[in-house]
Amino acid sequence: MATPYSYERDKEALVSRMKKIEGQARGIQRMVEENRYCLDIVQQLTALSGAIDEVSLMVLKDHIAGCVAQAVRENPDDPHIKELIDVIRKVMKR
Amino acid sequence: MATPYSYERDKEALVSRMKKIEGQARGIQRMVEENRYCLDIVQQLTALSGAIDEVSLMVLKDHIAGCVAQAVRENPDDPHIKELIDVIRKVMKR
Amino acid sequence: MATPYSYERDKEALVSRMKKIEGQARGIQRMVEENRYCLDIVQQLTALSGAIDEVSLMVLKDHIAGCVAQAVRENPDDPHIKELIDVIRKVMKR
Amino acid sequence: MATPYSYERDKEALVSRMKKIEGQARGIQRMVEENRYCLDIVQQLTALSGAIDEVSLMVLKDHIAGCVAQAVRENPDDPHIKELIDVIRKVMKR
Repeated sequence: MATPYSYERDKEALVSRMKKIEGQARGIQRMVEENRYCLDIVQQLTALSGAIDEVSLMVLKDHIAGCVAQAVRENPDDPHIKELIDVIRKVMKR
Repeated sequence: MATPYSYERDKEALVSRMKKIEGQARGIQRMVEENRYCLDIVQQLTALSGAIDEVSLMVLKDHIAGCVAQAVRENPDDPHIKELIDVIRKVMKR
Repeated sequence: MATPYSYERDKEALVSRMKKIEGQARGIQRMVEENRYCLDIVQQLTALSGAIDEVSLMVLKDHIAGCVAQAVRENPDDPHIKELIDVIRKVMKR
Repeated sequence: MATPYSYERDKEALVSRMKKIEGQARGIQRMVEENRYCLDIVQQLTALSGAIDEVSLMVLKDHIAGCVAQAVRENPDDPHIKELIDVIRKVMKR
């Protein structure tokens, strides 16, 4: 039976990336408190967003290889495809 | 004389938003540790990216009203315009 | 045997959307020639990008339900997953 | 007096880019009609979006150097800043 989540093998990497992202957020907070230059802050915010996108892609990869593949194997018109596309849409338009 | 940063009046709001973003990152880390559903995690990551975009826009707004406006007042071909567009490009393509 | 493309059932809709996108591009060209207001033009460019994203999502949906599902059925570590994620990455960072 | 648009000097380049974008849209339509591979189509759609972003950035650059700079010169709290940020927000979330 499938587990409800598919990122088992990437779990450790995901936790470690989220810890790093938390640290980056704290670093930007400090930059603001220290009155650092506007565009240096925006650049760090952009890097932070990029790091978050990479985590989304890692989870999406595992989700497609796991949950979706299994669902489609059992029913090619499975609603998991629609659900997945709706999430990719939100990721694209965030 | 202009300060090198232009977000003085939004400083408190910016720090408070970055604190909230740090908390969101920690929350997503917990979701991974608790084996939560893939797409629920991606949805929270998307919300986190959205929150970061709002902070970027707040800093860009202050930067345009402050640094850029002053620079353009003194020299309409000021390199601050190019620098600003380069940053907006990175924000768009993160 | 699978066809190399998976959007057969959406083909007509895709062609018709691309025709509409071509018309939108021509409309924006006219706005520039008529010296229309800067931000009205940017707004139309943004709408055009949004229409293109919807076409990308339609093709991605068919691709996941077709090519990818078939590939994963035959081999769960199929390189199609990696290829798909690389494309979603590019779509996100365009 | 300021003209209501600020892209005079880039007008020719903008029209020529929009013509190229129109051609790219027509090319993708042909790819669909010829049953080309899903991800090759998505890749071309992504390139098309990227070309549109570059046009948006060109118009935004002229708008900041022109309309916005003039407005801010006359009144630092000018609503043009808010309008500009609202447009950048839409461009980011398209």
